[in-house]
Amino acid sequence: MARKKILIFGSTGSVGKNALRLIKEKRDVFEVIGLCGNRNVNFLASQVKEFRPKYVCLRDEALADRLRKKIKRGSKILAGDKGLDEFSRLDSDISLMAISGIDCLRPLLTNIAHSRRIALANKEAVVAAAKFIFRKAKKYKTEIIPVDSEINAIFQLFNSANFKNGDIEKVYLTASGGSLFSCRREALGGVTAAQVLNHPTWDMGKRITVDSATLVNKGFEAVEAHEYFNIEYKKIGILLHRQSLIHAMVKTKDQACFSCIYPPDMKKPLAYSLFYPERISLGSLKDKKETFDFSYSPISYRKFPLLEIILEAAKRKDNSLVILNAADEVAVDYFLSGKIKFTYIEKALKKIFKVYRPSELKNIKDVYYWDNWARIETKKILEKK
Amino acid sequence: MARKKILIFGSTGSVGKNALRLIKEKRDVFEVIGLCGNRNVNFLASQVKEFRPKYVCLRDEALADRLRKKIKRGSKILAGDKGLDEFSRLDSDISLMAISGIDCLRPLLTNIAHSRRIALANKEAVVAAAKFIFRKAKKYKTEIIPVDSEINAIFQLFNSANFKNGDIEKVYLTASGGSLFSCRREALGGVTAAQVLNHPTWDMGKRITVDSATLVNKGFEAVEAHEYFNIEYKKIGILLHRQSLIHAMVKTKDQACFSCIYPPDMKKPLAYSLFYPERISLGSLKDKKETFDFSYSPISYRKFPLLEIILEAAKRKDNSLVILNAADEVAVDYFLSGKIKFTYIEKALKKIFKVYRPSELKNIKDVYYWDNWARIETKKILEKK
Repeated sequence: MARKKILIFGSTGSVGKNALRLIKEKRDVFEVIGLCGNRNVNFLASQVKEFRPKYVCLRDEALADRLRKKIKRGSKILAGDKGLDEFSRLDSDISLMAISGIDCLRPLLTNIAHSRRIALANKEAVVAAAKFIFRKAKKYKTEIIPVDSEINAIFQLFNSANFKNGDIEKVYLTASGGSLFSCRREALGGVTAAQVLNHPTWDMGKRITVDSATLVNKGFEAVEAHEYFNIEYKKIGILLHRQSLIHAMVKTKDQACFSCIYPPDMKKPLAYSLFYPERISLGSLKDKKETFDFSYSPISYRKFPLLEIILEAAKRKDNSLVILNAADEVAVDYFLSGKIKFTYIEKALKKIFKVYRPSELKNIKDVYYWDNWARIETKKILEKK
Repeated sequence: MARKKILIFGSTGSVGKNALRLIKEKRDVFEVIGLCGNRNVNFLASQVKEFRPKYVCLRDEALADRLRKKIKRGSKILAGDKGLDEFSRLDSDISLMAISGIDCLRPLLTNIAHSRRIALANKEAVVAAAKFIFRKAKKYKTEIIPVDSEINAIFQLFNSANFKNGDIEKVYLTASGGSLFSCRREALGGVTAAQVLNHPTWDMGKRITVDSATLVNKGFEAVEAHEYFNIEYKKIGILLHRQSLIHAMVKTKDQACFSCIYPPDMKKPLAYSLFYPERISLGSLKDKKETFDFSYSPISYRKFPLLEIILEAAKRKDNSLVILNAADEVAVDYFLSGKIKFTYIEKALKKIFKVYRPSELKNIKDVYYWDNWARIETKKILEKK
């Protein structure tokens, strides 16, 4: 059987690295035809040496010459926006989309026309532009599988399950509560980036780790659950579950909860996304112990006001989520660069949620317009502070 | 649509009562055509008045006249072994088999030829005579659905799931540990029946509550899991889970655990057994709280030696389980009547497991023969003690 052609967008990030680790063990199944990184030239070059893809793409054009010096033959080097566009037009059996932030949206939309399956690890694109993504995927009969752990767990539950829609009373997402859960609200102003990045259970990229502390991430996951599976927002519940073992639960109307439990290790949902409908043996997850203590309880919206704002925005079904996603991306970036205190993330999002003009998203240009608008406005808010 | 004709074997017991509570709310779906009790004449008579079945059966013939005085018309009264045999030959859409102990085996085997679905709440029949039961069910295309909570949870997981058999690494049953879990082994000799019957999470019949304390019950459930679903014994794991919220888990080879969680309330698995493949709204289970703390860990075979003996017997695939089931039934009965100490249950089972002659079960008569032999021998052991 011919090997499956796979493209990796974001190969040098946390998800990309995990995926290549899985693929390495299954060279008989996958042929890596393209790797795309952002700025990490050395690491990308080492991946190219190992996987020998036909194409390699570096998003930061300014560093392209350094990459060219390292890779003299065998792989065609693409760079910058134009290079990424060309990379996105390559035909593949599976594309792993693991570029972080809204930057993933353009290559994703382009690639939908050229790939049979997209394993989508990016959530911002779905938050900002779900209707355009899923419409195009439908048109091109491209399968989109969520890699995000909680959403992948719902995918597993729904997929491995014959639930009839009317049987479902509730779908629960679980939230670890993030790195600052034990911190009193009054003390949040003084926390450092290092403290916020020290997540209790998950080892992830930086922005998502900060978003876990504000629960913006969980709000975005509720949007994903809604968009991927057509679950009404009133049927989506969020539970505090500090241990990150239960990733999702489906409650049927006869009061049975079906839960999907595994250690917090991205290899698991990644493997399911790449190999689905097959399951492969995974012997080496993070956590192999046999004794588990866990708990779940309702989440406090009082403690996490941004979660409530995201859910409110989601229900508006207009540009609201584009605005909040962009504002959050900017604010988190400012916080991580030491320009603002942690609490200003919340302040900025609350502020922009007050001042933006709700408008319908008629086409993808509207998404880019409002994304850009919100970035500029958020910067103004944060510079003025 | 015509209502489904339902027969209840063991209507006055714990499971029978719960079933009639469900059926009462769904009179448009079910027509109770027969009720069968053991000795509780008054309660059976009150059920007959409420449900007006065409047939009523009392297993204890000596009390039949008392029942006849209470029910003068409307229902045909059957009594004793002959009556039960006639009752078992009634045609039904669903039969709930909730007679306790090995006494269920004969009416079950007879009724398989006359019912389209058997909701089987009895586990002793499966433990002692699975191959004869499932062979006959196959011949008559009669569906057998396990009502036992843990096994029903596996049924729900398998049924609502498209697991391929090769995907399954392990099936876990959970054990609460029973009423004596916190009791040191040296203190077990002094426990009273009342102490043993005070189960921490489940409200059940007497024998099964005692069997929960010795974990004989969990061994029998492993047999059920093996027989109903063809799961190899080495793939069946038993976890200590004090809270009885997780009823079963299926672990796939890619390290995902799918669990079925609900409060310890028999209404839930009963409803699924009676209404399957439909799920009905169940708003009023025992436990409605939203905050849960739970844990699971490997069970200690050292602490529960009978569990290990049952599992050893199960693997022999001969008369061993017939012997142990009969011995346990006798010993538990002796304990509940105050004739022996709690620790003699274990002693009796260990003793009989040493002295019996392992033999193949060629036909159902062999089951009855060894059942009878083990009862006599166990009584001898216990009288001599």
